[in-house]
Amino acid sequence: MDDASGFRAAQGGFRWQDVELLTYKEDGSAPFKAITRQVLFQGPALGCELRYFEMQPGGHSTLERHEHVHAVMIFRGRGTCLVGGAVREVAAPDLVYIPPMTWHQFRASKSEPFGFLCMVNAARDKPQLPTEAELAQLKSDPAIAAFLAGEVSEANA
Amino acid sequence: MDDASGFRAAQGGFRWQDVELLTYKEDGSAPFKAITRQVLFQGPALGCELRYFEMQPGGHSTLERHEHVHAVMIFRGRGTCLVGGAVREVAAPDLVYIPPMTWHQFRASKSEPFGFLCMVNAARDKPQLPTEAELAQLKSDPAIAAFLAGEVSEANA
Repeated sequence: MDDASGFRAAQGGFRWQDVELLTYKEDGSAPFKAITRQVLFQGPALGCELRYFEMQPGGHSTLERHEHVHAVMIFRGRGTCLVGGAVREVAAPDLVYIPPMTWHQFRASKSEPFGFLCMVNAARDKPQLPTEAELAQLKSDPAIAAFLAGEVSEANA
Repeated sequence: MDDASGFRAAQGGFRWQDVELLTYKEDGSAPFKAITRQVLFQGPALGCELRYFEMQPGGHSTLERHEHVHAVMIFRGRGTCLVGGAVREVAAPDLVYIPPMTWHQFRASKSEPFGFLCMVNAARDKPQLPTEAELAQLKSDPAIAAFLAGEVSEANA
């Protein structure tokens, strides 16, 4: 990743030379669907990592929060994301900032893949999943309830 | 930049909502040509910054080196870059890693704008410019001499 040669060519299809296509998270560790992870930059000389996440149509990341922040650039297609109380349709190359301890999730539409770059601190805390009570509170907002049910993604398709 | 709302829409033309178009460096501080800077993400919660640099046709960044590293993704068009002893043509979305204390420069062709994202540690040392002797040594490699003279960019146009 931080080899001296320095150059890693794009290979088409949102893949890169010497960059492994990884599972998003360990299976069963948290709810997610049809999403992959590629680590583009990582290493002891950098305070952050740069990752590329991609969802297939209908896919989504985990609904979670944590103390560390995310600096996101939408990189492929369009989709919907939740940040705190806001549900927004986003498209490449929009910017999304996820503040500390803010519920967030990214969802692809049913019609196209959806990908984003995510810059994150190398040292970071473990994500928290919502409790039943926290989930119920989120769903008390109709827009968030529709988003979590995948309905916004569908409307977006 | 790190506002709570979180969303900043792309506005076309490689510009973003609430992101200022900045000069590359203070004028006269170092040699460069026809290049701008936009800071996409920056703030106390992040160990790194994410910037977007763009050169007009014929433009180039400063030839420099420093202890901090750069994690670069080509984001617009194609151009040429020097990393240490290597001159390479690169195109979006290729990845380029600039190791510590490695001479580097990005050059647009004469025919199109050339832009790249650059992730860099928030805390970093000041860039060094080559001395006359260091520049002469770099130019002793014909490929590097041609690159620094803008000839590779021209061939690439």
